[in-house]
This record gives sequence, C-alpha cells and structure tokens, in this order.
Amino acid sequence: MPIIDLNSDVGESFGSWTMGDDAAVFRHVSSANVACGFHAGDPSTIAQTCRDAVAAGVTIGAHVGYRDLAGFGRRFIDCSATELADDVLYQLGALQALAGAAGSEIKYVKPHGALYNAIVHHEVHAQAVVDAVHAFSPGLPLLLLPGAVAGNKAEARGLRVLSEAFADRAYNPDGTLVSRREDGAVLHDTALITKNMVRLASEGKIVARDGSVLNIRADSICVHGDTPGAVAMAAAVRAGLEAAGVTVRSFA
Amino acid sequence: MPIIDLNSDVGESFGSWTMGDDAAVFRHVSSANVACGFHAGDPSTIAQTCRDAVAAGVTIGAHVGYRDLAGFGRRFIDCSATELADDVLYQLGALQALAGAAGSEIKYVKPHGALYNAIVHHEVHAQAVVDAVHAFSPGLPLLLLPGAVAGNKAEARGLRVLSEAFADRAYNPDGTLVSRREDGAVLHDTALITKNMVRLASEGKIVARDGSVLNIRADSICVHGDTPGAVAMAAAVRAGLEAAGVTVRSFA
Amino acid sequence: MPIIDLNSDVGESFGSWTMGDDAAVFRHVSSANVACGFHAGDPSTIAQTCRDAVAAGVTIGAHVGYRDLAGFGRRFIDCSATELADDVLYQLGALQALAGAAGSEIKYVKPHGALYNAIVHHEVHAQAVVDAVHAFSPGLPLLLLPGAVAGNKAEARGLRVLSEAFADRAYNPDGTLVSRREDGAVLHDTALITKNMVRLASEGKIVARDGSVLNIRADSICVHGDTPGAVAMAAAVRAGLEAAGVTVRSFA
Amino acid sequence: MPIIDLNSDVGESFGSWTMGDDAAVFRHVSSANVACGFHAGDPSTIAQTCRDAVAAGVTIGAHVGYRDLAGFGRRFIDCSATELADDVLYQLGALQALAGAAGSEIKYVKPHGALYNAIVHHEVHAQAVVDAVHAFSPGLPLLLLPGAVAGNKAEARGLRVLSEAFADRAYNPDGTLVSRREDGAVLHDTALITKNMVRLASEGKIVARDGSVLNIRADSICVHGDTPGAVAMAAAVRAGLEAAGVTVRSFA
Repeated sequence: MPIIDLNSDVGESFGSWTMGDDAAVFRHVSSANVACGFHAGDPSTIAQTCRDAVAAGVTIGAHVGYRDLAGFGRRFIDCSATELADDVLYQLGALQALAGAAGSEIKYVKPHGALYNAIVHHEVHAQAVVDAVHAFSPGLPLLLLPGAVAGNKAEARGLRVLSEAFADRAYNPDGTLVSRREDGAVLHDTALITKNMVRLASEGKIVARDGSVLNIRADSICVHGDTPGAVAMAAAVRAGLEAAGVTVRSFA
Repeated sequence: MPIIDLNSDVGESFGSWTMGDDAAVFRHVSSANVACGFHAGDPSTIAQTCRDAVAAGVTIGAHVGYRDLAGFGRRFIDCSATELADDVLYQLGALQALAGAAGSEIKYVKPHGALYNAIVHHEVHAQAVVDAVHAFSPGLPLLLLPGAVAGNKAEARGLRVLSEAFADRAYNPDGTLVSRREDGAVLHDTALITKNMVRLASEGKIVARDGSVLNIRADSICVHGDTPGAVAMAAAVRAGLEAAGVTVRSFA
Repeated sequence: MPIIDLNSDVGESFGSWTMGDDAAVFRHVSSANVACGFHAGDPSTIAQTCRDAVAAGVTIGAHVGYRDLAGFGRRFIDCSATELADDVLYQLGALQALAGAAGSEIKYVKPHGALYNAIVHHEVHAQAVVDAVHAFSPGLPLLLLPGAVAGNKAEARGLRVLSEAFADRAYNPDGTLVSRREDGAVLHDTALITKNMVRLASEGKIVARDGSVLNIRADSICVHGDTPGAVAMAAAVRAGLEAAGVTVRSFA
Repeated sequence: MPIIDLNSDVGESFGSWTMGDDAAVFRHVSSANVACGFHAGDPSTIAQTCRDAVAAGVTIGAHVGYRDLAGFGRRFIDCSATELADDVLYQLGALQALAGAAGSEIKYVKPHGALYNAIVHHEVHAQAVVDAVHAFSPGLPLLLLPGAVAGNKAEARGLRVLSEAFADRAYNPDGTLVSRREDGAVLHDTALITKNMVRLASEGKIVARDGSVLNIRADSICVHGDTPGAVAMAAAVRAGLEAAGVTVRSFA
C-alpha cells in the first residue's frame, strides 16, 4: 500500500502579524516546516506552533532561512559559508529547544525560500547547510528539491536526503519545475492536482506539461497554507490520496 | 582548600563590531557567560566563542537577555511572561547548538543586563526566566545576585541557584550593592579588590563600606573584560586568589 | 457647522505580513497615522501607504513608536531621553522622505502604542518626544490623549497640541478612559458609538459610564481598521457624522 | 591652484558597539559619509556624528546601504528595485532629519559596501538608487566609482555624478582597481600613497601598477578611519596635499 508524506510551511507569523492558517494546515499534513525566527516566526509563535504540531500528531521539521525578516527569507543574501552554517545551527538549536518544551524534537530540515532555491546550485551555501545539519545531528534528514546540489553534498556527508514534489507546479520533461515566469507554471485545477498526486504516490510517475510521463521519486508532497484556496487544495489532495488508498504519513 | 569560580561576559561582538578582549578573558576566568544573540552575539561570534571556551577549558554559561540589539540588553522591556519565557528558551537552544558543535554544552544560565536587574524584583519576569530554564533543562543552575526574587522562584521550581559577588563593587551593610549612582560604588584599587576577593573566597566575608564585616555566600566572582583595565583587574584577582591558595574552578 | 477629524492607524504591514485593510480605512478617515518602521511599516509599505493617502485626499501623520518590531511597539522600553528623541527624529525624517516622494508631507505626529501610553505620565519620554518633534519642525502638531503630560510639555515648547477621543472606548466620570482591564471598557454597539460621536462633534459632550455628561475637547476621533468589524464601525461613524451635518475634515 | 575633496566613512558605531575613530577622521577629511542605520549607525550615533561634522566644518553625505546590520552592508542582497529604492529613500530621510537637527543637511550620497559594488554593474539596483536619490532631491550628487553603471543612469536622470579615487589601492592599466584578491592590491607605503594623491590632485594622473600613466578624474579621494593605521594615513595624505599646495575642500 503506497505511503506518502504531505508537508507545508507553518509558524510564519511574527509578533502581531499573522501568516497562514496553521490550525487548518495541521489537519491536512503529516509534516510541518516550522519557521525558526530568521525569516519568520518569533519565539512564542514557534512555541505555540510546536505545541499545535504535537497535538495534531504532525512531525516537526526545521524551516531554516537567510537572516531577513524584511524580505521573509525570499531574497538571496551573499553571506559567507561560515556565516550561513552558524546561522543555520543557531536556528536549529532555537527550534529544538522550543520543540523540546512541547514534548517533541526536530525530525528533518527543509531550507526556506531563497535558501531552498540557492542550494539547488550554489555549492558554497549548499555545503554550509549540509555542514550545519551534520554538526547539529548526523541523523537528521534534509528535505530538498530532487537534483539539488545540496542533495549530493548531503549524501557525501552521510546525511539522508528526502525529495519532494510540488502539488501545484507543472513539470518540464526533464523533471525540473516549470519556471514561475512561464505561463502554466502554477496549477489551479484541484481535481487535476489531486489526480497527479495520487498517481505520483501510487506509481512514482508524473505527467510533464508536454504529456510525457516522468519517473519522479518523492518522499513528500509540498502543499501550501497561506491562503484559503491553498488550504482547500491541501485538504483536497489529502482526501484524494486517502480515497485512493494512499496512506499519508511522515517519512520520519 | 577554598575554591571559587570567576565569571565574565564574552561573545558580545556582533557582525563587524567587536566588544571586549575575549581571548584575554579566557586566560583568567573559569566560567564564561556567552551572549545568545538577543542583546549581542551573532551566530558566528557565538560559535567561535564556544570553540575558544572549549580550548581554554572554560565552562560555558548562557547569557540570555531581552531582545534589544540597539540597547545591548541594558533597557528594561515590558514584555509578557510568555514572550520572555519563549525568548529565553529560544536563546538557550541556539547557544546549545553552537556549544554542542564546539564539543561542549551550556552548564549554567546567567541573565544579562536589564534582565539580570529586573529579576531581582520583577516577579513575572523572574518566573518566566525560571520556567524557561526549567523547561530547557531542570538540572541547569541559575547564576544570580544574592537575594534576587528569581532565586526564590528557582528554588521553588527545583532549580539550583548560584550566587555571585562583584569584584569591583562596594557593598552596603545589608549585603546589597552600593548603587552606581553613589560615589564609591565602583572600586578601582586592584590591590584592595584582590584582598577583598581572597577574603571572600577563603572566609566568606566581605567588608562593607561602613567597615562592617558581612557574611556573603558567593559561588562565583564576576569580573569584566570589556576594557584593558578590566582585563588587567581580572588577571590580578585570579593571580591574587591563586597566590593565596584559593583554587579557581568552575562550580559546574 | 461642526467639524471633526477621524484618524486611524495605517501602514502597519511589514514585508510579507499584512496588517489591516488600509484601502478601506482611507475611504473613511481624514487623517492617517502612518507607521514609520520602528514598530511596523517597511519602507515600501510606507511609500505605498503615502501614495494611497494622497490619492484618497487623507492627511499624513507620523505614527512614531519604540524600536520594537517583535512587540509591535506595544511594550514599554526603558530607553534614555536621547535614544528616544533620536529614534523619533529618525522616524520622522524617514516618513517625510517617503511622504515627499508621494507628493505630500507629515502634517502631525501621533505616538504609537506603548509610547502613546507612556507619555501620558512619563516625564522623560514625554519631553523626548516633544523635543524631537520641535527639532524636526516647530510647526508640527502633536495628537495626544487629553491630559497627557506630553501635552503640557509640548505647549511649553510652543508646539500645537491636538486631542483625540476614542470612538469605541467608555469614559470615566473624570474624563479618562475606562481601563481595558475592566468590563465595558470597549464599546461594540455601533449605533451607540455613532450617536456618542455625533454628540461629541456637535456639542463637545460625551456621556461617561455612570451617566454623567462630560465636556470633552476633541480635535479628532480615533477609529480602527485592523479587523473587518473595526472598518465597518469606522464607516458607520463617518456616515453617522455626515448624516448629522458634521463635516469630517482633517485639522491640518 | 588644485582642489580636491577627502572623504571617509563615519557614524558606523551601533548602540554599545564602537567602530572607527570618527573624531580623528573629522580632523582630516572634508566630506563624511554618514551611516544611515541600515548597515550601521543607530539614531543617536548618527545625531552625534552630524553634530561633530558641523563642528568640524565637514560636509555630510549619506552612506546608504542594504538592510543588513549583521553583515554590515557588505553582503549583496537580491532585493527588488522597489524595495531598494524605498530603503534608500527611507535612509536619506532619516539622516536628513538628524542632520537638520544638527544645523546641516545631506550634500551628497555615496552608497556603502556591497551596494556600492553592486551598482558598478547591477542595472536594476543602480537604477533604484538613482531613482531614490532623484525622488529625494534632484540636486543631490552621487559619489561613485568611475565607470559605474549607476553613473550613466544618474546622468541620464539629470543627477550630478562625482568620481572618487582610492588612496590605498593599486590601479590596473585600464583605470579599474586591482582586485583585492591579487597581491599588491592594497598599498601600505604612506609616502608613496601621498605622492600618488598629490599627483592625482595636481595633474589628474595616476601611475598604474605596470608603470603606465593614467588620466583619472577624481572629485574626491577616499581614505579610511577604521584603524589607527588608516587614520594616520589619512592624516599623512592631507598634510602631503596641503604641503604641495593642494586645497582640500568639499565638492559640495
């Protein structure tokens, strides 16, 4: 019986500012990427998010990012390897303490935003993230875009690497994502998305936008929760997976 | 043979800004209060400080503070108990990760600046600090001003409380520190200070500014390292203690 | 024919975080308290807010606050007079540049949150705000709670002082606001609120919660825009005022 | 009689952290690049720096940078054109208010660190800086590296562009600076540096490292003040220039 993980970003509120509907997200996902304070997430938000994750039985992952509240971690910052590795370690430790107080712990690491994108190709930043995760805990897996250079470096370091697919994104025939700058990059048809994800979870295949069928390894499917529409889509994907006999469960 | 701990603040540089001569401090103290990023200390500074502490055989303590880089943690912030407790937990976890990567760990907690002063009397903030330390690790001692309300709350929670004396401060006959607003509050005579600290470590006694002799419990003596004069005084106090047969050693 | 100003807070989004429905607020108020970046408001949010204010014909005021993004300026910070005065000047200049690029300028200053409350009684912070506003522009009025110590200091310095009433707050017989800690402090009955504000604008009178009738000077009425309910109330107050023949117009 | 300007960075302290010896710098330069709070410079530091500049008769320039205290503005941040333009406007306004309170005003703009380097070639960021300066004040000159793409864009927008030379840097035969990654990029021979700068100011010529003589337009010479050696070199350059009959005077 096929098993897949569903992950989404949570804990991205900050002080008086709210982001996303985490309570709804926790009803649909099996893994939660919790902001660690550098791109979003003040300590009390993180603490509450960890308690909510524990209550919902959702696995906690560390959503580490560049130090950039004003840019929500979505802007590349040309920091040094040392700065980045230490920033990641700092965030991991901070989240670990708050997860621990909630009776849980970090089970995986998924870089956020510009950092997630950078380590697809940026050798120095990829290595820095890998080194930081390894220094924190060599048993902690990294959740990445398939093919990211960080994945190679993580495996070379002995870290477990997990791959994710994106429910609402179109794929090129080579297995990469269609760039957001192109038409049709983002899918909006919930029925189609759900069908795609059921096939991915069941057969490990996805249809690229030219109609070719790709073999894709996905340990997890990324869904969103920052708009009402996104939450509804996450709910539909989960319901569709379960209706098709796919078990939604954390990889951890 | 008497034993005493010497502690000082370290890791208070931030980015391109340097604070204090940590290398010199590490030659003289047995315990280092390491900034945790909220009042000072960027992650790379903290990481390097932890490696230096390990190399010097100095015990690492967490110097947690209010979230206030612009004020260096020296300004009271009227935050809620929840905010403060979570801020402290966040800092503890962050430092723990960086200390861990250096092969060590946090051995005690000493609040910094305005927070240190607030929890002498501020019930809510005192409880928040105690709750955070307990949530992080019930075995972690708190290093405090003798008589602080946080000490009572810590003991009520089952935490170990350590008291410190200040090498360069004059004492009132009731055992409190002479306020910095009064003349003679800060001592500058290195020979006198050293003599005082030897007596404190050997006999548990200190001479108040009216000449009366006080019984003071001190697990540690606080010295400074933020000016060349302060480092010289720390060196003199350590040399004087050792010459008098006092062992300088961490309480941890 | 009676005239009154309606003011509300705007520009309080920050980066990817949204706060309030400024577009709706601009349809109802005559004066907009624009966040200046220290408690809320990144530069691009402020710039857009200024353009929107100009387009709506709404007067721009500077909503200066303590330096505290994590606390949204709602936590008292025990900064020095110099720090506070310079922080306020910095914020005024920053907003002025962005208002200027939008073709307008700051027409008044209303302190935000904890600073607003502090300068009701805190002599040092009140003087610092007054000094900063005077240094920036001696012709700039301060919008304050009636009776605030900052008002006395502002007048002593030659600044114009404007008083505001709160549409949704109950009054004590002595003209102060009923504390939010007490039941009935916040009013929710839109019809009653509108009736109160019409009487205030027309006769300068308000009914305290014990039924006594107070003479209240109000140059402006503060309404909110951070929830759908608040925006609806602001709309109702404006409509009620205009239906009663009151002109809603900025004091500037 | 030849005239040249000497500029240096000042106001780069932050809170309790000190950077550079601004008092010494003010004795040697004619123009001061004052930090604006985004890479360095808290409001009280900026205010004091402006007062010191006025007292010393030194022209105030705005040293605007990326929003990055932790990186001291030395890390490229991939922000949008809108974010950057608004960040620059915000900084210009903030400094203007503090300069105004000191009895002066901004007379030029020199971008800092990574932003200075980026706009040598980064079209979008160059245009954003130009647009912000123009929106703030079309009469404000930009002080740039000769050949920077920002210079072309500034002139196209009608802004005055000023070029600077670097006292302690070696030049390639094509007039660009020798990269810091190459040996001999930074000069340390005070006598040679002074001789070079006298010739530059008198004849508009500089000797490249291959011995060829270049025609260089320089409205200003950049000297440093962040180390005792740098201050001594600035003093020597000024003394040498004056001894050779060159007048050191702001271009403003």
